Amino acid sequence: MYTLYYSPGACSMAPHIVLEEIGKPFHAEHTSAFGGKVTNTDAFARINPKRRVPVLHPVEGRMGGAPDALTEANAILLYLARTNPELNMLPQDPAREARCIEWLNWLSSAVHAISYGQLWRPQRYVGDERDFPAVVAKGHINVREQYAYIEDLLADGRRWAEPGGYSIVDPFLLVLYHWGERIELAMTRDYPAWTDLSRRLLDRPAVQRVLAREGISILASNA
Amino acid sequence: MYTLYYSPGACSMAPHIVLEEIGKPFHAEHTSAFGGKVTNTDAFARINPKRRVPVLHPVEGRMGGAPDALTEANAILLYLARTNPELNMLPQDPAREARCIEWLNWLSSAVHAISYGQLWRPQRYVGDERDFPAVVAKGHINVREQYAYIEDLLADGRRWAEPGGYSIVDPFLLVLYHWGERIELAMTRDYPAWTDLSRRLLDRPAVQRVLAREGISILASNA
Repeated sequence: MYTLYYSPGACSMAPHIVLEEIGKPFHAEHTSAFGGKVTNTDAFARINPKRRVPVLHPVEGRMGGAPDALTEANAILLYLARTNPELNMLPQDPAREARCIEWLNWLSSAVHAISYGQLWRPQRYVGDERDFPAVVAKGHINVREQYAYIEDLLADGRRWAEPGGYSIVDPFLLVLYHWGERIELAMTRDYPAWTDLSRRLLDRPAVQRVLAREGISILASNA
Repeated sequence: MYTLYYSPGACSMAPHIVLEEIGKPFHAEHTSAFGGKVTNTDAFARINPKRRVPVLHPVEGRMGGAPDALTEANAILLYLARTNPELNMLPQDPAREARCIEWLNWLSSAVHAISYGQLWRPQRYVGDERDFPAVVAKGHINVREQYAYIEDLLADGRRWAEPGGYSIVDPFLLVLYHWGERIELAMTRDYPAWTDLSRRLLDRPAVQRVLAREGISILASNA
């Protein structure tokens, strides 16, 4: 049985949703990343020296942490989709699969690592606290540019990020939609296509179970 | 026939190497990213609005640029490996495949996007030029921490990043080795296991052809 180490509302919510979509029993281990309460402990560093969620265990092999601990949200998403092909959350066609990886890689490197890193972890970018506000300010500009680009992509009439169907990209987009709410962007007003996609996700029982377990509300005043 | 848009010595060198490993004819389109000479033009923005190399064309579908333009180095690497299974650069086993994606996602988000972004594109992180030195200084710290982690992983006796064999991770590690030389880290002294891996790559005719075409020397004084 898998254990997923997650932090409520973090990018670990994407693999959490995919595990619920699969529908087999798994253990969800609450590991608070915000504030670093658990991820900064030595015990967690032995599981993942990068001190990040998500971690999925056990998956054969080892990068640098505990044996059989798989890190990196995108690796976990791809692995879960690949080992559960009946889920149909990763296209068999290599070009469509590549489009999913293209989305996920950009979301995780440009949007999550760079822009949200600036907003929420400016200490990664500058050593002196007095420089934090400049990093945060530029992070807000970056997020807005990227969110406009995402909305533009989703506004062409497609129902899901990879137009052929619901895929492992969509739960990641729901996480970022939630983060947009957290930083108080006007999500329903400025990102209507993305809002529609998020509503389709919120209709899914698997998504509802994850939000309940993580204690997260999305589109709470507009659902 | 594929066209790869590349910039000499950029992360596009990794898919460039994989294309040479495949051995079928392709066109390599020199697109200078450093200094932004070509990537900042309107013509290139129509191909990839994210204004980055690499781009592989044609791959069916579209994220946001030209039709059939595939962006994101990791998506291109996975696609090339998947559509050329005889190459054996991506394991069939899902757990070993996931380890490759785990490596690549971390290299592209944490090392490339965050740390080298700080060193070479501080304008992504702060708006005011006077804040650039603080960003660059922290970038140097980040790179050193990450490079120590990479060396530690490679020093356990494995011959390739994914221990089972040469994979799409290794060309990306060669790019980062080269970048370490560019920022004048003592690569051969401080990263001996990574140096050995790089020498194994430099022995490959496909790698030699790419370095010659891009005009790049690696381990030039120590080969």
